[in-house]
Amino acid sequence: MGLLATRLLAEKGVHVVGGIARSEAKRGVDLGTMAGLDPMGVPVDTDAARVLASVRPDVVMLATASFMPEIYDQLALCIDAGANVLTISEETFYPWNTSPALAAQIDRLAKAHGVTVTGGGHQDSFWIHQVSALMGAAHRIDSVHGSATWNADEYGTDVVASKHVGETLEEFERSSTRDDAPPTYGRNVLGALAQASSLTPVTWESTVRPVIVDHDRPSQVLGRTLAAGAVIGYADVDTMTTAEGPVFTFEMAGYVFGEGESDKNEWSISGEPDLYLHNGVVPSYTTTCTQWVNRVPDVINARPGLVTVDEMPPLAYRALPLHRYVHDGKLD
Amino acid sequence: MGLLATRLLAEKGVHVVGGIARSEAKRGVDLGTMAGLDPMGVPVDTDAARVLASVRPDVVMLATASFMPEIYDQLALCIDAGANVLTISEETFYPWNTSPALAAQIDRLAKAHGVTVTGGGHQDSFWIHQVSALMGAAHRIDSVHGSATWNADEYGTDVVASKHVGETLEEFERSSTRDDAPPTYGRNVLGALAQASSLTPVTWESTVRPVIVDHDRPSQVLGRTLAAGAVIGYADVDTMTTAEGPVFTFEMAGYVFGEGESDKNEWSISGEPDLYLHNGVVPSYTTTCTQWVNRVPDVINARPGLVTVDEMPPLAYRALPLHRYVHDGKLD
Repeated sequence: MGLLATRLLAEKGVHVVGGIARSEAKRGVDLGTMAGLDPMGVPVDTDAARVLASVRPDVVMLATASFMPEIYDQLALCIDAGANVLTISEETFYPWNTSPALAAQIDRLAKAHGVTVTGGGHQDSFWIHQVSALMGAAHRIDSVHGSATWNADEYGTDVVASKHVGETLEEFERSSTRDDAPPTYGRNVLGALAQASSLTPVTWESTVRPVIVDHDRPSQVLGRTLAAGAVIGYADVDTMTTAEGPVFTFEMAGYVFGEGESDKNEWSISGEPDLYLHNGVVPSYTTTCTQWVNRVPDVINARPGLVTVDEMPPLAYRALPLHRYVHDGKLD
Repeated sequence: MGLLATRLLAEKGVHVVGGIARSEAKRGVDLGTMAGLDPMGVPVDTDAARVLASVRPDVVMLATASFMPEIYDQLALCIDAGANVLTISEETFYPWNTSPALAAQIDRLAKAHGVTVTGGGHQDSFWIHQVSALMGAAHRIDSVHGSATWNADEYGTDVVASKHVGETLEEFERSSTRDDAPPTYGRNVLGALAQASSLTPVTWESTVRPVIVDHDRPSQVLGRTLAAGAVIGYADVDTMTTAEGPVFTFEMAGYVFGEGESDKNEWSISGEPDLYLHNGVVPSYTTTCTQWVNRVPDVINARPGLVTVDEMPPLAYRALPLHRYVHDGKLD
């Protein structure tokens, strides 16, 4: 994700000033070369504090882990260095409902340093701004149901393992109901959607549904075939009720796709009138990065603090170099 | 449209204070009764100036005609009376490119009286805010193609006549190329979409494409069957090029639908990556009114002048009475 974003940023006229990796093997390698571009004169370093102090970036593009507790120290390091942060950490997209204490700490810290922290990515257009615009065409909403699928086989072995791929149904049922299961990203999505629509969440429920098929399915990432009846991934199903009435469910299924399957995004509204939206074949991997990059000007323009995308203008296309969309011309 | 909006407004807690009709037959009839509701104590009047002077409305919901020259005097009358105006006149949605002089006059007049004039309706979510949000997921856009269909047979005889329904192909070709043909609504849509995406229109082209089917098709509004080979409506095809690169086409087809056909809305983006959006069965008639009504708070909140929806927050769902979304509490 970071390497794809590097190319997109460079093509949008952004001066990429540093690269930070966790693996020692990448130290000293030119970031441009690593991203498949011409050399940029930017050697990757593994010492984040050193990079931040020496290049003093306007914005850090953070793509390291999904949850607030995992990235808290990284966020704090960037904030202390006076940098805005735009991350694709899924929980940071709307952390107020799943990690309220950490979110409040980051908000205070960011305000104290005059910088903005924002979570962006695929959710932005497909799960918030397109959906809230569709909701705007309703007179009365009884329920909103979203359904998204993505191919776990397109991501790394970590992701495939976290989706319980290859487990038996019994193994899945034991492992997926552990008390220490992290919060689902769907809660963060629905929280932002409620906020964007001035609705007040009342109750939350999260369940999981394993995805199983009755024939063998090859996995490219695992390099082997999953036997019929094995778990090939699962869906998180999040339900949110609101004080104003509308009930939201969001079903997000990550699993190993079969031949001809593609990522989907589909939303149905029941009410007056019924409304519907679907996006055909959704290139989620790419749109995670394109939306992450297109948000850069908004993060620079935003007030200091933890500012989620529901508080921002809708995600916009950036035909011009990104600095042209920055109000005070800070980004070059 | 006005009667459906009357019910929606009443259900959203708006105090409907007056009703204006052009037909003498409606004079004195209670607006609630006319809208199929309980009586509202609001007799419809045919003297617009008298109604405006006596009830002094916060907002006039104007649904009389499509084009700026036709509604200019009506807009001026409302503005002079100190009322904001929210209209479903299609040209008023973004009149800057098709009637720039009249638009500038209305803008000046509205500013002088401290009121806002806005065009709303079906375009708002389906042709602007959903589409610009989708565009926000693109890194590079080469072209945007929109395609919408609507059933002319659901509207009145005026609309059916304006769609050349029942003409022969020869008649259509003569009548549709007359120099006094009004501007297409598609230009207003694309103009607003360009504005919402910070793009600069360079060239415009409008063509028409007749819709003809090779079998007989009954028309409910006409009360007769259209013979195979007759024109049953047509598509306006508008093309806009922009200084920044993306080329837009929007094809809007209004014709007499056959069995099982429904209104559609479909947008494709070619670029990196390709993106797509479609809305299944679109209840355009209803969503014209729902979106018109949901925009009321934004019109009251907006600065004075002619303010088009691309300058406004995205259309939002209104779960609560509309006055709850008005910043200064003016609407009750």
